[in-house]
Amino acid sequence: MSSFYEWEPEGPSVKTEIPGPKAKEAIAKLDKVFDTRSLNMLTDFTKSNGNYIADPDGNVLLDVYAQIASIPIGYNNPALHKAAQGDDFINGLINRPALGNFPPHDWAEVLETGILKVAPKGLNQVFTAMAGSDANETAYKAAFMYRRQQERGGPNVEFTEAEMESAMNNEVPKGRKELSILSFRTAFHGRLFGSLSTTRSKPIHKLDIPAFDWPQATFPHLKYPLEAHAEENAAAEKKSLEEVEHLILNYRVPPCAVIVEPIQSEGGDNHASPAFFRGLRELTRKHNVLLIVDEVQTGVGATGKFWAHEHWDLPHPPDMVTFSKKAQTAGYYFGNPELRPNKPYRQFNTWMGDPSRALLFRAIVGEIERLDLVNHTAKVGDYLYGKLEALAKKYPGQFDNLRGKGMGTFIAFDNPRRDEFLKRAKAFGVNIGGSGVSAVRLRPMLIFEQKHADILLEALEGIVTTWDKDLGKGGKWPL
Amino acid sequence: MSSFYEWEPEGPSVKTEIPGPKAKEAIAKLDKVFDTRSLNMLTDFTKSNGNYIADPDGNVLLDVYAQIASIPIGYNNPALHKAAQGDDFINGLINRPALGNFPPHDWAEVLETGILKVAPKGLNQVFTAMAGSDANETAYKAAFMYRRQQERGGPNVEFTEAEMESAMNNEVPKGRKELSILSFRTAFHGRLFGSLSTTRSKPIHKLDIPAFDWPQATFPHLKYPLEAHAEENAAAEKKSLEEVEHLILNYRVPPCAVIVEPIQSEGGDNHASPAFFRGLRELTRKHNVLLIVDEVQTGVGATGKFWAHEHWDLPHPPDMVTFSKKAQTAGYYFGNPELRPNKPYRQFNTWMGDPSRALLFRAIVGEIERLDLVNHTAKVGDYLYGKLEALAKKYPGQFDNLRGKGMGTFIAFDNPRRDEFLKRAKAFGVNIGGSGVSAVRLRPMLIFEQKHADILLEALEGIVTTWDKDLGKGGKWPL
Repeated sequence: MSSFYEWEPEGPSVKTEIPGPKAKEAIAKLDKVFDTRSLNMLTDFTKSNGNYIADPDGNVLLDVYAQIASIPIGYNNPALHKAAQGDDFINGLINRPALGNFPPHDWAEVLETGILKVAPKGLNQVFTAMAGSDANETAYKAAFMYRRQQERGGPNVEFTEAEMESAMNNEVPKGRKELSILSFRTAFHGRLFGSLSTTRSKPIHKLDIPAFDWPQATFPHLKYPLEAHAEENAAAEKKSLEEVEHLILNYRVPPCAVIVEPIQSEGGDNHASPAFFRGLRELTRKHNVLLIVDEVQTGVGATGKFWAHEHWDLPHPPDMVTFSKKAQTAGYYFGNPELRPNKPYRQFNTWMGDPSRALLFRAIVGEIERLDLVNHTAKVGDYLYGKLEALAKKYPGQFDNLRGKGMGTFIAFDNPRRDEFLKRAKAFGVNIGGSGVSAVRLRPMLIFEQKHADILLEALEGIVTTWDKDLGKGGKWPL
Repeated sequence: MSSFYEWEPEGPSVKTEIPGPKAKEAIAKLDKVFDTRSLNMLTDFTKSNGNYIADPDGNVLLDVYAQIASIPIGYNNPALHKAAQGDDFINGLINRPALGNFPPHDWAEVLETGILKVAPKGLNQVFTAMAGSDANETAYKAAFMYRRQQERGGPNVEFTEAEMESAMNNEVPKGRKELSILSFRTAFHGRLFGSLSTTRSKPIHKLDIPAFDWPQATFPHLKYPLEAHAEENAAAEKKSLEEVEHLILNYRVPPCAVIVEPIQSEGGDNHASPAFFRGLRELTRKHNVLLIVDEVQTGVGATGKFWAHEHWDLPHPPDMVTFSKKAQTAGYYFGNPELRPNKPYRQFNTWMGDPSRALLFRAIVGEIERLDLVNHTAKVGDYLYGKLEALAKKYPGQFDNLRGKGMGTFIAFDNPRRDEFLKRAKAFGVNIGGSGVSAVRLRPMLIFEQKHADILLEALEGIVTTWDKDLGKGGKWPL
């Protein structure tokens, strides 16, 4: 099978330990002005191509982390290079509009041929944003305004003096309850103050940062392999839905919306069944609570559908779907016109997104369609998953809780020495990320092919069969 | 005096009412998918040049609003056009890094020759962000973590189990007080949940959105002309500082930081004296409260200094300075190394800014330096202010509370029929914005010259001498 893009290297090439001498020098320089403690790999993007990421020491790794799941169709993709040279693109970049006040004359067309061309079924409008966090937070704002509008008696009821005064004092009017957003334990929805209040992934994300008194329900903890735990898993999902309903009805700060990831990504690649999500949709509709699906990490093809929630076969679409990462732009989709607040300037900010990034997404969508990359990813994912199942059998305890079957390349497994696993992966020519406490998460690009899967599989086998080899000392690095 | 850029039109040209027929058609189309109720003017950016903004009906207006104060050096600036075609620029665009994990090998150099080249005195580090709201919110996060670290006994003291558990439940550990950010009445610091909690500009920004119980102090309400009210104004500033101190010592949720705009911009162009800000710096230092200066709107030259707080002659720099808008990128500067949290991944997100936008800022800085635009703006501002003073005398009640003397082109005045004033300005060939309840705010670009000031002044005089003329009906539009 030939590559989508012929400019890619044949395979990884590890020449020095990582970071090598040149990277170390650059990191020391950078650290003086920019915190480098979370640095994974100093990158030479000019030498990175397709599925391969390069560093200044000449190391080239197969990249199945892809800038935390946000590179869609490869480094230095020629189609994006061409798009970036377009007059419309440069125009959007150097004349950045305040989109709510001064939209470009062709903004409708840009949206319709890009962001809205791939809108989830049933959702035909968009509010554009800058990144996943503010996509979620603006969706929350829409949810709060929608619910209060209902309480008030509709969009035409004017705000009272008491409401306006209390808002200026950061209070709700006397006699009215605060409202909340319900999220799930181990969820990740961003790190600004509102989104972080719904994020429940790790203490390090939340420590010392004030948060709202918002409720969290337990996400079902599925056991693997799924076939062997069908009953238990169904019970866990039922229990989770019951908890959601209990919190909707009883939490001291009643939720006006539930936000959920199709696959909890940062929190450890936690899956639930389509039936669970259909139940959640039913439940939220029953109680007049909005359902926001956070597709920041799952969206744009990696699960073998353009949007992961297409796997659920919902009878009614989510109320809002948020996106970012591989879209290279961000925002939320919605369908109900009442999710537009009743007055202008309630949902507003200076830039409200970025037209040049909307054009980039359009070019990405063009390549996804031209190369049929969503179906491609479904197929490559099936191939990869099958091979990983075999590896898991061959090396018990090394590829635990393999998950993501039928979900494209959105695959993960647990390894008891996960952090070391990820570090050693580089010596085997592969850049991989983790999620949660013990998951190795595979998050390749949409141009990841069977031949890349084979390279990855060989590296994974290498990692788990050489635990005793010293990588760091005595010149044994690279292996 | 010749233009900086020869591609500019000679002057405004108003051919139809605004919106004209073509704009109306495009707006109707856009409104189906994107809320247009806050639309000011549908813009043809391909035909906008320098200080002039164009629309699809062939109207060309002198733009002293500049995308809500965020276009620095003119539409379709050739220097930015050239920068956008650079290999480094395209590379940053199409290979967007997760900057905290995989910074580009030349990121230190990009920062040092751009964002950090113009760092405020005393602040030599930066955390990069996407827009003003998250620049402020990440600064707040740094402030909270800093203060808790002090309470804990320093960066080496580990988190307790109780702290980690309570954080996951959106609580502070038992026996510890919540902390807050103190802001000023009529301030604007953004519209996400944390930043909106410090924003106190208008009810429409805040209604129905949950907010933290954070304190607000009264911003001194200066009376104009300043010379005639020196004593009163000094008293108002003293009172404001006393209120700040009282809130620091007594508010039920103690502030760990104070955030302030050098000139309250969205809130109505409210100024205070350098002495007030020096007092605020002294007070915050005395009580171990951080001072965050929000230069999102005031920064990057418009006040005749690169940063507006340079006007204050502070003995100690602010702890953090946030920026966005005319920088075309965003973030916060800081100096104290302890403002880096004690562990990696505490201040982190996927993109953490945008390298291509950092390169754009570098190109902007290059043009500002080449053309000495900060000093230029100081001079043009003085010229404009002098002429406005004369207009104010000539037309009593039309240019009330003229303010911004010596602050470059960052000038505003009140008009009793402000909204109508702004609307009529378009008929006179000028695009102007408002702020607060009654302010007309001038926010021209840094390439605004004396000749543009003359065109603006003629238009302003036209507006206030033709109130009785009908613009909207009977074909009298344009005048």
